[in-house]
Amino acid sequence: MKLLRFGSVGQEKPGVVDGDGAVRDLSGHIADITPDHLGPDGLARLAALDLSTLPKVSGDIRYCVPVEGVRQFIAVGLNYSDHAEEAGMAVPAEPILFTKAVSCLQGPDDDVRKPRDSTRMDWEVELGIVIGTRASYVTREDALNHVAGYVVCDDLSERHFQLGGTGTWDKGKGCETFGPVGPWLVTADEVGDVQNLDMWLTVNGKRMQTGNTRTMIFDCATLVSYISQFMVLLPGDIITTGTPPGVGMGMKPEVYLNEGDVIELGIEKLGAQKHRVIAWNDGR
Amino acid sequence: MKLLRFGSVGQEKPGVVDGDGAVRDLSGHIADITPDHLGPDGLARLAALDLSTLPKVSGDIRYCVPVEGVRQFIAVGLNYSDHAEEAGMAVPAEPILFTKAVSCLQGPDDDVRKPRDSTRMDWEVELGIVIGTRASYVTREDALNHVAGYVVCDDLSERHFQLGGTGTWDKGKGCETFGPVGPWLVTADEVGDVQNLDMWLTVNGKRMQTGNTRTMIFDCATLVSYISQFMVLLPGDIITTGTPPGVGMGMKPEVYLNEGDVIELGIEKLGAQKHRVIAWNDGR
Repeated sequence: MKLLRFGSVGQEKPGVVDGDGAVRDLSGHIADITPDHLGPDGLARLAALDLSTLPKVSGDIRYCVPVEGVRQFIAVGLNYSDHAEEAGMAVPAEPILFTKAVSCLQGPDDDVRKPRDSTRMDWEVELGIVIGTRASYVTREDALNHVAGYVVCDDLSERHFQLGGTGTWDKGKGCETFGPVGPWLVTADEVGDVQNLDMWLTVNGKRMQTGNTRTMIFDCATLVSYISQFMVLLPGDIITTGTPPGVGMGMKPEVYLNEGDVIELGIEKLGAQKHRVIAWNDGR
Repeated sequence: MKLLRFGSVGQEKPGVVDGDGAVRDLSGHIADITPDHLGPDGLARLAALDLSTLPKVSGDIRYCVPVEGVRQFIAVGLNYSDHAEEAGMAVPAEPILFTKAVSCLQGPDDDVRKPRDSTRMDWEVELGIVIGTRASYVTREDALNHVAGYVVCDDLSERHFQLGGTGTWDKGKGCETFGPVGPWLVTADEVGDVQNLDMWLTVNGKRMQTGNTRTMIFDCATLVSYISQFMVLLPGDIITTGTPPGVGMGMKPEVYLNEGDVIELGIEKLGAQKHRVIAWNDGR
């Protein structure tokens, strides 16, 4: 099942993709897609609907974050061995965790803003895990039972904010618009083997990142289990799981994003995003 | 105005403290204290109520987090010069930011859990800023106009998780129950000069921390302005602003929390907390 939210900002409605790839309006059945719908019972209720009876949505669709009310947006650093190498950092012995501000979450195709004083804005295609049920001290074996599904994330980063100043990575990861997520939340049953999905990203049409989730250092089950030792994971929480090689910081010379650049990215089975870089104060 | 939430877990009601220090039930006027009530208009509506007409709450009161639906819980490290010294770290040139998981938020007097495999669980009395209105790229001069009020936080920490492994501080700051907040949200007008409040913390009755918000390196206005350069702050967000000297990690030899310990802490004008340390799996 591919769940989504569509419509203009503040007017979002819940939707689902039917077998022909058309978007169907779920708002006759649920008011919105919230963390409460992501447990096994909630997903089963949605899966039981006859999609052909739901109104088809026509015209251009603005996709939004596929879950309303996400409470935690957790990120894993250097989780692909070849990306750690290009970043000039050692392969970590255990997952590196940081946090993206939930206020940076937005739809997959919304414009992204280059922050004020940004000099090193970078892209990162990532697989995001969406939690379905509360997870605390779960084992690796049980971990994926707590997962509702998966999303595409662009883990946008400002490298100087992240690495150049004092403090932790959080400063360069949660800037306004730095969390495009979607277009869909694809449920785990439909994804199948999450550790064998192709990933790609282009900037202005030029291929920058090419990878596959099979080269993760710590796989999704390990990450959910590991993180649940340090904090309680809640339904709707998104864990973005690190990026394969090809970020701007890894180029020689380094390449960063500027106003007007267009980023496209996608993951096999999970859909694609396309967003344009605008100035921090564009339209303000 | 002192706003609060009271009642058993999941059954919380909104309340307010009257001029005699008694708790009055606000649930006849608002369903709960949420971020939507924290802007100037929302606070003015509450301030206009005649508290003597509200039902008095009698008996033992369990206080909860004073705002329901907090979306971001941001923390500042090493923000008191004498604490930086005891931690053996340099006074930072700019604020150090990290994130506490919102899933660790809980009432001020609820039991706190020593995490599984914890060896270095520590306390930190801190002043928490509660955001009232959205703040993005705000100046220092304008920053406090975006603040609804202040709370007491215990920024509980697991030093080995925080500092001993790979990655950022977030790993040792958001463990289940690591965010006692309250008892009240005291509105900014009632606090007056937020940079001159005495702070204290005891463990099993022994004074461990003694400080005053006047020795912050970066004051509240500076912090709100600074953080708003890196992320959008939303109504209800809590920024906990660092701790004065006297944490367990700073003792010689170091002192850490164990099951059965009782922590009490408070800040002038903002109230006091008292919580007991229990095992990670107590009652599970």
